[in-house]
Amino acid sequence: MDHVREDDRIVVRLEPGEEVLESLDAVREEYDIENGFLTGIGAVDRVTLGHYDTDAQKYSEEEFAGQFEVTNFSGNIGPDKIHTHIQVADDSFEALGGHCSGARVSGTFEILVTLGETPLTHHLDERTGLDVFDI
Amino acid sequence: MDHVREDDRIVVRLEPGEEVLESLDAVREEYDIENGFLTGIGAVDRVTLGHYDTDAQKYSEEEFAGQFEVTNFSGNIGPDKIHTHIQVADDSFEALGGHCSGARVSGTFEILVTLGETPLTHHLDERTGLDVFDI
Amino acid sequence: MDHVREDDRIVVRLEPGEEVLESLDAVREEYDIENGFLTGIGAVDRVTLGHYDTDAQKYSEEEFAGQFEVTNFSGNIGPDKIHTHIQVADDSFEALGGHCSGARVSGTFEILVTLGETPLTHHLDERTGLDVFDI
Repeated sequence: MDHVREDDRIVVRLEPGEEVLESLDAVREEYDIENGFLTGIGAVDRVTLGHYDTDAQKYSEEEFAGQFEVTNFSGNIGPDKIHTHIQVADDSFEALGGHCSGARVSGTFEILVTLGETPLTHHLDERTGLDVFDI
Repeated sequence: MDHVREDDRIVVRLEPGEEVLESLDAVREEYDIENGFLTGIGAVDRVTLGHYDTDAQKYSEEEFAGQFEVTNFSGNIGPDKIHTHIQVADDSFEALGGHCSGARVSGTFEILVTLGETPLTHHLDERTGLDVFDI
Repeated sequence: MDHVREDDRIVVRLEPGEEVLESLDAVREEYDIENGFLTGIGAVDRVTLGHYDTDAQKYSEEEFAGQFEVTNFSGNIGPDKIHTHIQVADDSFEALGGHCSGARVSGTFEILVTLGETPLTHHLDERTGLDVFDI
């Protein structure tokens, strides 16, 4: 992993084999991020997609292995939670997407994190069963 | 709806049941936004997707109901128009997308708006029938 | 093409018929961009999608013609390379995506480039055959 901070921005580039979410967790630790919004592209060879059922109040997950281009990776970083969604395309250019429950870099993964100040601290929303940030 | 402005950024979090576009309209009013670019993720239980036919010069629209993860919501805010596209995934992780003509929050919806100064004021481009911004 | 720079941001709007990647190349030249992250939406009538095979170390590409909404266009700009991925939706709202090897604007195309300082200079990663940036 390679990263650099300039003012309110952090550029992150991941290496083949690295886990995206664990790497972001390390970046959060390194820079004490309490409010970050991120966007990125890359390629992964394994991705776990999640879909939340607001009635059942739980995620269903499925792991996909193969060579995927990541057309978009978006989300945010709070002191207590990293929340990201991911969109991928297979070798037929067909698209899959969902909540990102895990992703392993194959080619490269390039992320920009934009930092804010108000901590994105999460609490349970009992209506949905989701941890969402208060601001 | 919850929102906070810091310098040239506004973080917005929407509540279950709230309409995304109407909420953004309220945020625009609140902060007098004339130039904003936005990106977000979330979950919706109803989304109206649009597709523009540049020959016929009109949008076709279709409403989808169900539980959708929003893998990406992107666009921009001018004083006279909010222009957004949306990408969603269903419970099979299959992707749908298009112009966002409407979206109702189910779980959460988290948006970052980045503000600029030059007003994104729109005019009609007669070649396409679209209102596009001049800068 | 229309563009304006404010501090560390450049807003770009493309015209019908313009090529997205060539236009970005001109924007890079105009402003001497060495570190830019971009996001955009728009509509195209021709897009060439790429998928990288990390084993064979080469891209396969396919050109798609038709009317497509661009639900997300993301990537980054270094002094020696522009790297973008693109997600599109057809008139059935079905999604296709991949590495962006080319795209021609039909309706409009609206991009925000966020500038940084550390040059995103690329080198060959022999493990993958990809040119990736060092920071």
